[in-house]
Amino acid sequence: MTAGDSLATGQRSMGDPTLTHPLWPPLTRGCPRTSTAELAYPVEVDYAYEHAGPALFATAEGAARSAGLDRWAPLLPPLGTPGLGEGHTPLVPLADGVYVKDESRNPTWSHKDRLNRCTVAAAAGVGAPGVVVASSGNHGASAAAYAARAGLRCVVLGPAGMPAALDAFLHAYGAVVLPVPQEARWPLMRQISDRLGLHPVSNLTVTHTGHPFGPEGYKTIAYEIFAEIGVPAAVFVPTGYGECLFGVWKGFAELRRLGLSGTVPRMFACEPAAGGPLAAAVRQGVPAARVSCGPTDAYSIACPVGGYRGVRAVRESGGGALLVTDRQLRESQQELARQGIWAELSSAASLAGLRSLPAGDAPEGPVVCVSTSSGFKDRATGTTASEVIEPTWEEAYRRLRAAGLEG
Amino acid sequence: MTAGDSLATGQRSMGDPTLTHPLWPPLTRGCPRTSTAELAYPVEVDYAYEHAGPALFATAEGAARSAGLDRWAPLLPPLGTPGLGEGHTPLVPLADGVYVKDESRNPTWSHKDRLNRCTVAAAAGVGAPGVVVASSGNHGASAAAYAARAGLRCVVLGPAGMPAALDAFLHAYGAVVLPVPQEARWPLMRQISDRLGLHPVSNLTVTHTGHPFGPEGYKTIAYEIFAEIGVPAAVFVPTGYGECLFGVWKGFAELRRLGLSGTVPRMFACEPAAGGPLAAAVRQGVPAARVSCGPTDAYSIACPVGGYRGVRAVRESGGGALLVTDRQLRESQQELARQGIWAELSSAASLAGLRSLPAGDAPEGPVVCVSTSSGFKDRATGTTASEVIEPTWEEAYRRLRAAGLEG
Repeated sequence: MTAGDSLATGQRSMGDPTLTHPLWPPLTRGCPRTSTAELAYPVEVDYAYEHAGPALFATAEGAARSAGLDRWAPLLPPLGTPGLGEGHTPLVPLADGVYVKDESRNPTWSHKDRLNRCTVAAAAGVGAPGVVVASSGNHGASAAAYAARAGLRCVVLGPAGMPAALDAFLHAYGAVVLPVPQEARWPLMRQISDRLGLHPVSNLTVTHTGHPFGPEGYKTIAYEIFAEIGVPAAVFVPTGYGECLFGVWKGFAELRRLGLSGTVPRMFACEPAAGGPLAAAVRQGVPAARVSCGPTDAYSIACPVGGYRGVRAVRESGGGALLVTDRQLRESQQELARQGIWAELSSAASLAGLRSLPAGDAPEGPVVCVSTSSGFKDRATGTTASEVIEPTWEEAYRRLRAAGLEG
Repeated sequence: MTAGDSLATGQRSMGDPTLTHPLWPPLTRGCPRTSTAELAYPVEVDYAYEHAGPALFATAEGAARSAGLDRWAPLLPPLGTPGLGEGHTPLVPLADGVYVKDESRNPTWSHKDRLNRCTVAAAAGVGAPGVVVASSGNHGASAAAYAARAGLRCVVLGPAGMPAALDAFLHAYGAVVLPVPQEARWPLMRQISDRLGLHPVSNLTVTHTGHPFGPEGYKTIAYEIFAEIGVPAAVFVPTGYGECLFGVWKGFAELRRLGLSGTVPRMFACEPAAGGPLAAAVRQGVPAARVSCGPTDAYSIACPVGGYRGVRAVRESGGGALLVTDRQLRESQQELARQGIWAELSSAASLAGLRSLPAGDAPEGPVVCVSTSSGFKDRATGTTASEVIEPTWEEAYRRLRAAGLEG
């Protein structure tokens, strides 16, 4: 409820940074001047940085956690709708000192809450009656929660074959859920947006641009890391469309611009090897690429189409675009769980990316792996259950011995 | 890793507060002097309060969230094992100003993490190779996560007919899961504890005493509320065995004892109407009661046996013991979700309790409802899924109109 605190001044084209557009309305179909039929360029939000004082970053924690993203209101788009105490997630050190930024600790248990705090505020800002979102999971549920919080409607174009737990999750927030085949999601979203005036909070363009205000919310991950440990050597991010990757990079770039730090961490995109449009774009030297996406259980980050934002973060930070197999994802998911963090398979991509680097290539200095969501979101979760055992000491002991537990 | 910071001095009998026991070992079977064959009295932890300075509560948020419960180490049992950034959950205001303390924002997405941070540290403190816990859900998973974090083993005696999602949750942390019928859980737990030396972190006694260090972790809920809004008029708590209810009350009582506040909130126990041993004990004027527990979907707080802790919190605070039906729970679950908080059915008991009070009986002043866990934990979650729709504008529009969305 602090829309007036925002220092946002306008939208800047990422296709040509000399081109600016007014702040309103949010350009949900990318930059109209530089995009082509084959390639869409996003816009990003500009701020009156000269008015952003260092006091904003002065304390380790700042305002109480309940304030959520409002703590950082000056460097966010106008937050005219209420939050849910999003963000302020902990950095949990693993045994070897690698930090895990545990984003499952958000209101709908994923990083998407940072994005939707901003996009739902944008929907209210343009006077839309609600939002529409195409999503296979976390994004849709988060949009539904923030829309409910703001008193707006939410329509989710979910995937065919949606896991039942996700269905319950979406319906709880009062969303209208329309499960449709993948290829029908975007055309329907465009029609629902055009004909009913619902504000689109996911992508509508040929290569990914998404909502221009969304990645701004992810900048707060960088602000929080900085407030706690300063600038790390590298940040690894599970990567679908690259919005979180870009947001974290932009946050650190802003801190440097404000004179609060001298460096920006190397940003590593971590995509499933089954697809990997960002890695393809980096390899080909293009702003965004399309790939065929094979089967993977990392459904939250399995994308055939990439966007320019993530490519820019990797290039400008001197980072890298890593591909990880489902087997590597499972190993990292287990490594995290055996230290107390049950992450979604897709969320383990960051640690899998780090672990995939040859020893000599590991970044020198503190490393942060962003873990985006919880193991409850996996499709396999809830599909098999243990059988009841014979409730005798003999049977219990037999099983405990088999598990290596002896008296 | 701050065991040395603790000001804990010993264990005090709740059956006779003039009786004290050494701090170690934790009396996991209650007070040996005052308990009888029909009624077990817990012990609680005592501190050198004269050394607890007000600086501990000086700032709104204190140390960074990653520090977890370590922030409050002086007034907790020794925390000799690492945390996961537990606690520091937000107070989310509902539209009518009621605050929801959203405990689904903990490492395993329930309030139990505050308890298990303390009980697993106790297990390590006595040199046990691991912990054993009887649990129908949140407690077991949380114990498994903290045991994994501490490098200890964990055995969970789960319920027969355990939901598959819970099974995945427990196994992820490497726990040995033994699903057994309800009546076999406690005898087996006792045997596993006695014969294998695993430290029990759930109850072993005839009326509930649980682990003496566990409720100490819940005190931090009170500390956090106090740091943010001072002392509320009342706190409503979903109540099974009453450990959280007691912990929150004790935390506020300590703040008063330290001279930091003048009052303690009225504490309201909110039990499922299908059971309600705490309400029975209060009604009968006894320290703890047994009831028959009928069917309820609020499985996390459906208990046939109560304990003295919660009774004491209700009596000494001038609060009340409320009973809520499954229908009332569902209404409050929906009220929360439609404001962006998807709580487990059991977790909605606090709001259901508040809403059940006649208008004239509502507490005057700020009210906090503790919401203990996430909707993902409900047994019904994940059992029904929406069907795929015909992916045409006409079909989508028909469904959107039916949901009240028109162009």
